[in-house]
This record gives sequence, C-alpha cells and structure tokens, in this order.
Amino acid sequence: MTPEDLVEIEAIKRLKYRYMRCIDQKLWDELATCFTEDAAVAYSGGHYRVEGRDAIIEWLRNAMASENFLSSHRVHHPEIDLTSETTAAGTWALEDTVILVDSDFGLRGAAFYTDEYVKDGGDWKIAATGYKRTFEETFRRGDVPSLRLTASWWGTDGRSELEA
Amino acid sequence: MTPEDLVEIEAIKRLKYRYMRCIDQKLWDELATCFTEDAAVAYSGGHYRVEGRDAIIEWLRNAMASENFLSSHRVHHPEIDLTSETTAAGTWALEDTVILVDSDFGLRGAAFYTDEYVKDGGDWKIAATGYKRTFEETFRRGDVPSLRLTASWWGTDGRSELEA
Amino acid sequence: MTPEDLVEIEAIKRLKYRYMRCIDQKLWDELATCFTEDAAVAYSGGHYRVEGRDAIIEWLRNAMASENFLSSHRVHHPEIDLTSETTAAGTWALEDTVILVDSDFGLRGAAFYTDEYVKDGGDWKIAATGYKRTFEETFRRGDVPSLRLTASWWGTDGRSELEA
Repeated sequence: MTPEDLVEIEAIKRLKYRYMRCIDQKLWDELATCFTEDAAVAYSGGHYRVEGRDAIIEWLRNAMASENFLSSHRVHHPEIDLTSETTAAGTWALEDTVILVDSDFGLRGAAFYTDEYVKDGGDWKIAATGYKRTFEETFRRGDVPSLRLTASWWGTDGRSELEA
Repeated sequence: MTPEDLVEIEAIKRLKYRYMRCIDQKLWDELATCFTEDAAVAYSGGHYRVEGRDAIIEWLRNAMASENFLSSHRVHHPEIDLTSETTAAGTWALEDTVILVDSDFGLRGAAFYTDEYVKDGGDWKIAATGYKRTFEETFRRGDVPSLRLTASWWGTDGRSELEA
Repeated sequence: MTPEDLVEIEAIKRLKYRYMRCIDQKLWDELATCFTEDAAVAYSGGHYRVEGRDAIIEWLRNAMASENFLSSHRVHHPEIDLTSETTAAGTWALEDTVILVDSDFGLRGAAFYTDEYVKDGGDWKIAATGYKRTFEETFRRGDVPSLRLTASWWGTDGRSELEA
C-alpha cells in the first residue's frame, strides 16, 4: 500500500458514503451516479437480487421512497483492496434502522457487505454489492407505548420537537 | 486529491472524533479546543443555535454535564472537501443515544451534519457545525420493565456488573 | 503526520476492523492473527482481564462461540498515534449489541477503547486492548412481545425472512 493507493481508497470510501447518504436522504438521481450501468446487487444474503443500474434505482425507490419510511443505514470497518488500476474489492460492516411511521413497524439489523468497484472515466463506481445479515429483527412500535417520533427529515424539516 | 490532502483530511477527522469523545466523556475544557473563537452551531435542524466558543461550551455543559446524562454520539461517513489551504467543508452521518438515568427517559436519533473547518495556527478547528435529523424518537425506559443499566462511566467506573 | 504515516495508520485501522469482523463472524483462527503472542486485554473497565494470545482466543471463544450468540461490535472515531517505527497507540469508540437467541436476553452498550499496537515482522498486531463503558444495559427480549428475529448469519444464512 502506498500513499497514492490511499487516495484511491479514500475515493472508494467516499463513493460508499455518498451511496448511503443518498439512500437515507432519498436522493435517487444522485444515487444512480454511484453505480456502473451493469451493476448487480444482492441484498440480505441474496434474498433480493437486482441487475442493472436503472433496475436497481427503481427497486430501491419502490422500497424506500415513501416519506413514511425513515432509515439510518451506517457502514463501518472498510477493508478495501485495490485489485488493479481500475478495480477494487471491499468489505464493510452495516447497521441499519428502519421506522415505518404509518405502519407500527420497526427494524434493526446488522450485516457485512461484500463489494466490487470499477474506476470508470476517472470515477469509482459500484459494480457489485451485497450483504449477508448477522441478524435482523422487527417489532411493533406499539409494544413500547411511550415511543414517540420527535423529529423527522420530512415531517419537521429535521428539527426536534423536544425542549432542551 | 493528493496524499498531502489526505493528511489534512485525517487531521479534520481526528478533530471531529475528539469533539465527539469530549462530548460523551464530559471533557469540557478539551472540547473548547475544538472550536474557533467565533464558531457557530445549529443543532437539530436549527432548533438549537448558539454562537461563540464560550457560549457553545456553556450550552453543551448545561445540556449534558450531569452524570445522570449518559450518551453515545457516533459520527460516520465523512465526506470532507478542502476548499482552500486553510478552509474545509464536510458532511457526516450521526447516530446518537441518550439515557437519563434518573428520569425514565431514552432517546435515539439519526442525523446528517454539515460542518465548516478553519486551519488556525496549524490546527484545524470547527468554525460551524449543525445537523438535521433523519429521525429522533424518545421513550420512557419503564415501558421495558426489565431494562437495567449494568455499567456506566461514572457509576461503575466503566465496569460491567454482569458475569461473563 | 506524513502520507507515509497514513499508510501505517490505515494498516492499524484494518487490523482493528479485521478483529471486529472475526468476533462477529466467529472466525477464531483468523482472530488469533490479530494479536501478539504476549497480548493483554482488559475489557469492560478491567472487569475481564486475560493475558496471552491463546488464552484471549480461548476466553473469547468461550464467551461468544455459540450460534445462539449474535453480536454486532462496531468501532468508530479512530485516534491513532504512531509512537515509534514499530509501536502505536489509539483510542476508539465502541457500540455493541448482543442477542442471545435462546435466552430471552438482549444487551446494548457503548464504550471507549484504549489500544497499543506493535509492528511485528511487517504486520501490525494488537499488543494491548481494553475498553471502559460509557453505559451498558440489558433487557429481557420478551418485554417487547412482537420482537422477532427475521434473519441470522447461522439460522437463515444471512437472508431475511421478510418480504420486500
């Protein structure tokens, strides 16, 4: 590994961070720029498989576009290897939370991603991504009667309704 | 981006990590070293706004100094851009947990930070920081009757009361 | 800090990420490669102390090897200092979740790690590691009656049982 390799690795990390930010902020057009045209995804241990950038964006948009769908997807522990001048592979650890505001549904999970990246016209893109879950659990939010949403990106413009 | 840029970016990341560590460990004097004198904060989508390093530290200390206030603020997904030799801008993803031991109160949230940094006498400082919440939720800890605090920094010197 | 220092620091971060991945994936042989032979650990503010690589692996395996033990250990906020050509020290922020599938037990915690690293035959290893908890809490999963495990690494090969 050289300092110049670190520059490539930092660019790949930023690609991944942009992907995650676009998911949770519902920025579908910017999200599309993260993928190669022929990208393939295999989420949840292959439970969900989609091929092709446009189909992937359509699938993610269908799953997550509602403003009732609030999520925090956070990735950690990047282990990125450059495999050629224009290819790289990496693993990441995921933790995710989903709240369906109108459906009394909550989800928490943990997983490990395995990714492939391609440098395409000077920019790193995701060529393949998928994760396998360590665990995933769901619950009815009504089981915790006092649970109250006090802020949301779309509902309160990201401001808390709590007093300090 | 050059290897030398990465050195600056790593210094900015460490500044942010020091800031978060000082918050959760209640190190208010070390926290003050993270800010420029004229820094401005806008937490929770602008719900809380404070200007000036001394006022910021006073505000944070008032909100969080009690040893009954236990928190985990974790930042992820740094997207840092150097905008000149001495200025930089960045976004981060936040997840935070707050436990008020004596008040039957719990909070979990997720947000995105937007920061500005200035290099001041060789050291990067936070000139402006703020976050907008994806979500925030609160609950009464008594809703989960078995919930038991088994360690805390101040209450047990960070040791668990559990047996292995 | 120089670009060449960043290469060493990235190698130390990867060591830590490998350690965490091996814990949650139960890869005990690969985990052993993360430690020096005379490594020492002091988890949970010194509540658990073990010395020597083989004893550490045995201790971790005893605590975590069961496939009923599902965990997510995530480390954040690396503040790594190179202290010589072959030694380094660092702090990290931890968040961890444990689910005991067969025991109606859940745990969530937050902590700060203090580590020492040694470069040994070209590879960085953990010479000493320990953490002090900001908080740790446990609960009976049955307190949330709807809580349902919908995926696990060993139980479902990492695939969700949910429909999209």
